[in-house]
Amino acid sequence: MPIVTIQVTREGSKPGNDAVTADEKAQLIAGVSQLLLDVLHKPLASTFVVIEEVDTGNWGWGGLPVLAYRKQLEQKPG
Amino acid sequence: MPIVTIQVTREGSKPGNDAVTADEKAQLIAGVSQLLLDVLHKPLASTFVVIEEVDTGNWGWGGLPVLAYRKQLEQKPG
Amino acid sequence: MPIVTIQVTREGSKPGNDAVTADEKAQLIAGVSQLLLDVLHKPLASTFVVIEEVDTGNWGWGGLPVLAYRKQLEQKPG
Amino acid sequence: MPIVTIQVTREGSKPGNDAVTADEKAQLIAGVSQLLLDVLHKPLASTFVVIEEVDTGNWGWGGLPVLAYRKQLEQKPG
Amino acid sequence: MPIVTIQVTREGSKPGNDAVTADEKAQLIAGVSQLLLDVLHKPLASTFVVIEEVDTGNWGWGGLPVLAYRKQLEQKPG
Amino acid sequence: MPIVTIQVTREGSKPGNDAVTADEKAQLIAGVSQLLLDVLHKPLASTFVVIEEVDTGNWGWGGLPVLAYRKQLEQKPG
Repeated sequence: MPIVTIQVTREGSKPGNDAVTADEKAQLIAGVSQLLLDVLHKPLASTFVVIEEVDTGNWGWGGLPVLAYRKQLEQKPG
Repeated sequence: MPIVTIQVTREGSKPGNDAVTADEKAQLIAGVSQLLLDVLHKPLASTFVVIEEVDTGNWGWGGLPVLAYRKQLEQKPG
Repeated sequence: MPIVTIQVTREGSKPGNDAVTADEKAQLIAGVSQLLLDVLHKPLASTFVVIEEVDTGNWGWGGLPVLAYRKQLEQKPG
Repeated sequence: MPIVTIQVTREGSKPGNDAVTADEKAQLIAGVSQLLLDVLHKPLASTFVVIEEVDTGNWGWGGLPVLAYRKQLEQKPG
Repeated sequence: MPIVTIQVTREGSKPGNDAVTADEKAQLIAGVSQLLLDVLHKPLASTFVVIEEVDTGNWGWGGLPVLAYRKQLEQKPG
Repeated sequence: MPIVTIQVTREGSKPGNDAVTADEKAQLIAGVSQLLLDVLHKPLASTFVVIEEVDTGNWGWGGLPVLAYRKQLEQKPG
């Protein structure tokens, strides 16, 4: 009966994508359900997975909205 | 002060509906708030309810996106 | 496939109890699962319920830990 | 590594706004990250903040959808 | 910046264990973090994982506390 | 009606403490409730705060349980 919640920003994983694709979602669902089967012997049929896509403006990191924080990280000298 | 979170797929409950209706949401809110009053004596005014509708592509069951999993279940011989 | 999360303070519902009892939990589970069957036609077997008991010191209301806030409410003149 | 989740209704904070603005979100992110630094000494870079905006029809209070409940409160004699 | 929450019942995965072991938890953390790297190219360092163990009495399925529901399932004729 | 959930590891904020103290919790509750009043004009009385303390073995970062990950970070040359 596991419940797995995956929260990610609503963004593409490569240039040209602006969101997580249906295929990527299916891979996340398959992968994490399999992991619970492998590690804890939970049957696939008893695992629920919920993917929550969060707008980048609603995600904070480093005290800033995440896009602003990433820009700041990039500008830091190594 | 209870907080109740109800997560459901964003679907209609009958043909012709493609989402949970405002009336159904009101019934869920009323019903679960009443339940907490009846069982734990929590005043209605101190219960918060949050309904989260999740796109079917973002919900996994049986290692698959839920629509694919339901199709698989239907095709299984009894 | 609904998931219902019920968060309540870890307290008894009447004098002599200091926690939600097993019987009360069973009533919450039965009641909310039935509600989802009645309102959205979700089969009992596809509803998960998770009850989270939260220590009163970890619950805030009115800007205060909840026990302090309740005391404040009681002392207010009508 | 704290994770802070802020759930609010999707509404403006003043006349003319119909949603939480980007600036208000940035203030929430900055403020709560600073709070965790001040109180628990958590570095800003290790705090994640997720803001979830919930449609008013999906938020229940007092056994009613929240807009109906607010109307009821306003109509109560003092 | 993904956040993955894994909710499971507080039980052992095999006879003799009465809880998820530290090693199993480490496998869940490693596996799901790797999955987000593989599927969405999220660096390991930006993924948080939270494992929530839920007492079996606090988990409902089929309208019943989960241990009662499992017993019911076992007693059903094939 | 905001709901704020603060998830932190169950650890002390300074030597000699092995958990978040009641006073620190009260500061978190007061601070975040005030923030919602300041930024979104939400009355203190309508904000709920839930603090969830998570055992360090149940928190993953960098693909590892968090204590192992911190050790790894410390051993990295600048």
